[in-house]
Amino acid sequence: MSSTYGENLKISIFGQSHSEAIGVVIDGLPAGFEVDMDELGEFLARRAPGQGKHTTSRKEPDRPEFLSGLAGGKTCGAPLAALIRNTNTRSSDYDNIRDIPRPGHADFAARIKYGGAEDVSGGGHFSGRLTAPLCIAGGIALQILKEKGITVKAEIKEIGGKKDGFLETVEEARLDADSVGGVIECVIEGVSAGYGNPMFGGVENKIASCVFGIPAVKGVEFGAGFEAARMRGSENNDEFYYEEDGRVRTRTNNHGGILGGITTGMPIVFRAAFKPTPSIGKPQKSISFSEKKDAVLEIKGRHDPCVVMRAVPCVEAAAAITVLDIILGGKN
Amino acid sequence: MSSTYGENLKISIFGQSHSEAIGVVIDGLPAGFEVDMDELGEFLARRAPGQGKHTTSRKEPDRPEFLSGLAGGKTCGAPLAALIRNTNTRSSDYDNIRDIPRPGHADFAARIKYGGAEDVSGGGHFSGRLTAPLCIAGGIALQILKEKGITVKAEIKEIGGKKDGFLETVEEARLDADSVGGVIECVIEGVSAGYGNPMFGGVENKIASCVFGIPAVKGVEFGAGFEAARMRGSENNDEFYYEEDGRVRTRTNNHGGILGGITTGMPIVFRAAFKPTPSIGKPQKSISFSEKKDAVLEIKGRHDPCVVMRAVPCVEAAAAITVLDIILGGKN
Amino acid sequence: MSSTYGENLKISIFGQSHSEAIGVVIDGLPAGFEVDMDELGEFLARRAPGQGKHTTSRKEPDRPEFLSGLAGGKTCGAPLAALIRNTNTRSSDYDNIRDIPRPGHADFAARIKYGGAEDVSGGGHFSGRLTAPLCIAGGIALQILKEKGITVKAEIKEIGGKKDGFLETVEEARLDADSVGGVIECVIEGVSAGYGNPMFGGVENKIASCVFGIPAVKGVEFGAGFEAARMRGSENNDEFYYEEDGRVRTRTNNHGGILGGITTGMPIVFRAAFKPTPSIGKPQKSISFSEKKDAVLEIKGRHDPCVVMRAVPCVEAAAAITVLDIILGGKN
Amino acid sequence: MSSTYGENLKISIFGQSHSEAIGVVIDGLPAGFEVDMDELGEFLARRAPGQGKHTTSRKEPDRPEFLSGLAGGKTCGAPLAALIRNTNTRSSDYDNIRDIPRPGHADFAARIKYGGAEDVSGGGHFSGRLTAPLCIAGGIALQILKEKGITVKAEIKEIGGKKDGFLETVEEARLDADSVGGVIECVIEGVSAGYGNPMFGGVENKIASCVFGIPAVKGVEFGAGFEAARMRGSENNDEFYYEEDGRVRTRTNNHGGILGGITTGMPIVFRAAFKPTPSIGKPQKSISFSEKKDAVLEIKGRHDPCVVMRAVPCVEAAAAITVLDIILGGKN
Repeated sequence: MSSTYGENLKISIFGQSHSEAIGVVIDGLPAGFEVDMDELGEFLARRAPGQGKHTTSRKEPDRPEFLSGLAGGKTCGAPLAALIRNTNTRSSDYDNIRDIPRPGHADFAARIKYGGAEDVSGGGHFSGRLTAPLCIAGGIALQILKEKGITVKAEIKEIGGKKDGFLETVEEARLDADSVGGVIECVIEGVSAGYGNPMFGGVENKIASCVFGIPAVKGVEFGAGFEAARMRGSENNDEFYYEEDGRVRTRTNNHGGILGGITTGMPIVFRAAFKPTPSIGKPQKSISFSEKKDAVLEIKGRHDPCVVMRAVPCVEAAAAITVLDIILGGKN
Repeated sequence: MSSTYGENLKISIFGQSHSEAIGVVIDGLPAGFEVDMDELGEFLARRAPGQGKHTTSRKEPDRPEFLSGLAGGKTCGAPLAALIRNTNTRSSDYDNIRDIPRPGHADFAARIKYGGAEDVSGGGHFSGRLTAPLCIAGGIALQILKEKGITVKAEIKEIGGKKDGFLETVEEARLDADSVGGVIECVIEGVSAGYGNPMFGGVENKIASCVFGIPAVKGVEFGAGFEAARMRGSENNDEFYYEEDGRVRTRTNNHGGILGGITTGMPIVFRAAFKPTPSIGKPQKSISFSEKKDAVLEIKGRHDPCVVMRAVPCVEAAAAITVLDIILGGKN
Repeated sequence: MSSTYGENLKISIFGQSHSEAIGVVIDGLPAGFEVDMDELGEFLARRAPGQGKHTTSRKEPDRPEFLSGLAGGKTCGAPLAALIRNTNTRSSDYDNIRDIPRPGHADFAARIKYGGAEDVSGGGHFSGRLTAPLCIAGGIALQILKEKGITVKAEIKEIGGKKDGFLETVEEARLDADSVGGVIECVIEGVSAGYGNPMFGGVENKIASCVFGIPAVKGVEFGAGFEAARMRGSENNDEFYYEEDGRVRTRTNNHGGILGGITTGMPIVFRAAFKPTPSIGKPQKSISFSEKKDAVLEIKGRHDPCVVMRAVPCVEAAAAITVLDIILGGKN
Repeated sequence: MSSTYGENLKISIFGQSHSEAIGVVIDGLPAGFEVDMDELGEFLARRAPGQGKHTTSRKEPDRPEFLSGLAGGKTCGAPLAALIRNTNTRSSDYDNIRDIPRPGHADFAARIKYGGAEDVSGGGHFSGRLTAPLCIAGGIALQILKEKGITVKAEIKEIGGKKDGFLETVEEARLDADSVGGVIECVIEGVSAGYGNPMFGGVENKIASCVFGIPAVKGVEFGAGFEAARMRGSENNDEFYYEEDGRVRTRTNNHGGILGGITTGMPIVFRAAFKPTPSIGKPQKSISFSEKKDAVLEIKGRHDPCVVMRAVPCVEAAAAITVLDIILGGKN
């Protein structure tokens, strides 16, 4: 099982990079919600190729086609299904990848798992393209959350180890036929205290479980995260105080809005680490399945030197899906 | 829902710090396995209080009582249940915590969620004591994995931001009536390539989902983790090569044994960040529920200045439970 | 949550009777299986309208379009998605149903649940048309099971309380502007002993849980079923004996191939009771939501006086999906 | 996986007939509910041996011991765990069963599944004794439902095919060293319209999935059930009308309170068929595993000639657990 997520809101993502279409089924959306299609389109455009100055957006934005789940423009209680057609034809560009797995990519693992039946074309089901249906589901979840007073906002904190000059860092990597990764921080505001559960049903468990579903994520941390491990308790503990409006808040937010797996009413804050794009122009050492010996791989074509810009809405999508899933389950 | 985990191996943990008992039900263990009770006892002893030179072990080790799931000393296919009696009587030590929530602790979130019905005594179900039943399940899982040629080994990488001199760092914190956290790394060897799934069914998703169930964990990363976000693709990508025995391996292991959510046959490597123990001797600012105003909290009694030593077997337990759960599901 | 099923093989069904399309996502299919599209088409044709002599098949068979999950004609490990376009335009035929719920139909319950946002057109997501995607998933599961030596065969045992003359019984009902239900029996052969689990993980629980997902099913029984409740133990108990080939079998099969939730190697046998089609030509007493008073409903158009013939492949589909789900999980 | 049930309320049952103890962990109970222990004791007494005139109650009622989940007598949000000690010592009564499986019992299937590691003593985990922890969970669920205005009441409709004279029928079977089964009907009142979901998430699916977890159940039907399959639509369809209080109800309840998987506000009605107790005094034909040939089995000791009386509270328990699980999930 791979591509389903959620308990109260269940999403099932399908598609390969070069299959007829990619898409998502979303089961459990509240009935009667009017999806703002323009807003959704703008959200999806944020993950389309060409999010930085250094590249030119050459592709039309992907337009989802809605197959079910709406009646009169509103959610009707039935599962919502949407697809995006793949316009790329199956090319022979991937013939060498079938034999020589790309370092850092899923090619090798997929070959062992599926015994050669896997769809290698464009990365198949492992392609970053599969984040488009994630963003359809996430974009709708964001709208529903907004109506409930909850906002989800992600931003880049680091690229290639630097905290600014992101486009320059990416451009340098591109000129070197190389790639860079980065860190994205996501802040969720407006979730009241009392959601989530201790141990395995915690908000951290659920968010991590979804965010690790975005390709290239290798780490997830909440609040002060790994930095908390370097603090003393007296520094890391967030003092409680009464706001003038009678609400209890904390002065700092090292706990990232979650204590004991349960929301405290403070903003939920997490960061995800993205590894650098594995497909790079430089020649790389790998192996040849057919010849059963070491081989050098040269990947043809242009490659995205950094997915971090396009991953920002994907992180928001994963966060929104998780939070809506949690909220639909109530506080019990 | 909170304290259940797993798909093929289901564990259900119960108990509060001061309830009659704590324990675990494990459903799905393979039948016919003889649990080595001595080995299990030694494993459990590793998480008992007093794991460092700086403290004296004053408590008898917790001895689990097995209620079901065994016949003639072997697993019989029925759910295995084990409990550990709590010998602490319900004390009045926690009366002030009922009114003044501890910063960094679950007290406040639990109060909002359970409306005052929560068991605050000793931290209730949020207590680190609940890692004992986790270790019962994990200790059994470790033995089953060992029989399959799989080993799980965790160790401390950092305490209080330092990479050595752990006991000194802890002792300093203790003398300051303060606490420190740390980072634990876990290595799982012997899992063959092809387990796991893309997207939400990935090995990373499943491990993170379990490890965040250990109290105080605020971050989880795989392979190079957050450091990967600072590398270039050419550095981070792990080259494949043929071993003399015909197996394909990678020369480095920045991917931590998982690509595309699927195992590659390389060791699975992850790190978990533990925040410093929230209960400290220093006075802390908090609020009083009853007086609806800010208040100062002074926590009585001795407190563990660092849980990281005792958390090492807990991380192994969580890893072993997850890996056994994955392996029992097969590679399809 | 409504339209997802399965643990190892997860299906997610979408669509409304008059939405753009209906379809299914199937996650967890073994990779490398070549789906026989002609055989699948023939299977789907069995549930198309006009399965009896008394009606004329006026509709083209629904042809599924495959969006993903196949590469080179074989399953590739990625989720398989298929859809069927709805050719019916949204008509105004259902305007009165929006106000006056049909007795025996989901109209009233859906109105309360979805607050008027539900898609009433053609029955929306509750339509029998949604069994088409069930049959796509089931048809593929049947082919995979066949390769494993497992066959699933359903047949009608009763219509309108009679054990033969089915078409005459249906025709009589039709002439009376009425409808009839019936009983379908399903036999699954070739499942070896040892699958399933005691209590809630039993084969009976899982089959029932899926078969009750077919609209109009109001009862499910295994082996001798309700008749077993009228036997004595000495009659109902199935004697074991050794076959000449060394296999243990039972002389009778009142247990329907399942004891203690676990398969015995005997054929799995179950029956499902289908209520008569609720949409009938006769005027019926109901209520008007808008006028908040009792009202008489007259349903326009032709209606299927009996769904039982068309339900036979649906029962096979549900059985095949469940059995494949169980088998993919293995015997542990 | 076998002995866990539920999505919002998760129960995990453990124990064998002759293990140290049997019991249950219940995760997800609303916090702050005071369990009436006397009422629970009375409920449990209803499934204790000796519910009919024909037998003498020789055993003390099983008294559950509560290990966790309560604080000050009320549920505290943490998982509730309860156990019942087994007082029977492991006897050698079951030595012949280990070799000669009882017809109609799980012995044979368990032997194949667990390869001889299964606990045959007293039926192990398959024993009817495991309905005691089911009744602990169910008894608590009943109390919570009662507070919400929901009642669950089961009664015997048939024993040995007769609709009255139950004790005489059982006594006749006993005198013949034989056994009888029966049919239990359960009525759940007070569930408002709008719970449940279409297709696999229906109330019927969920109830059936739990009720088939009671040993000996071979059929489950809702409302008119199998009889509906013999009616015409005009008979089976339940007319809607407005009550004087403004509520919509149906004049008949052939639909058993569920249409399209969703509650209608009418009483939920279902029946479960129990097969006759497989353990009977008469000699029966079976096989010997050790000798690999046919063999005759004579079961020693007294045996319950009918479990139906004791099964009544078990059906109520399963129904209550399911309904509470559904209600805790809300109507979305």
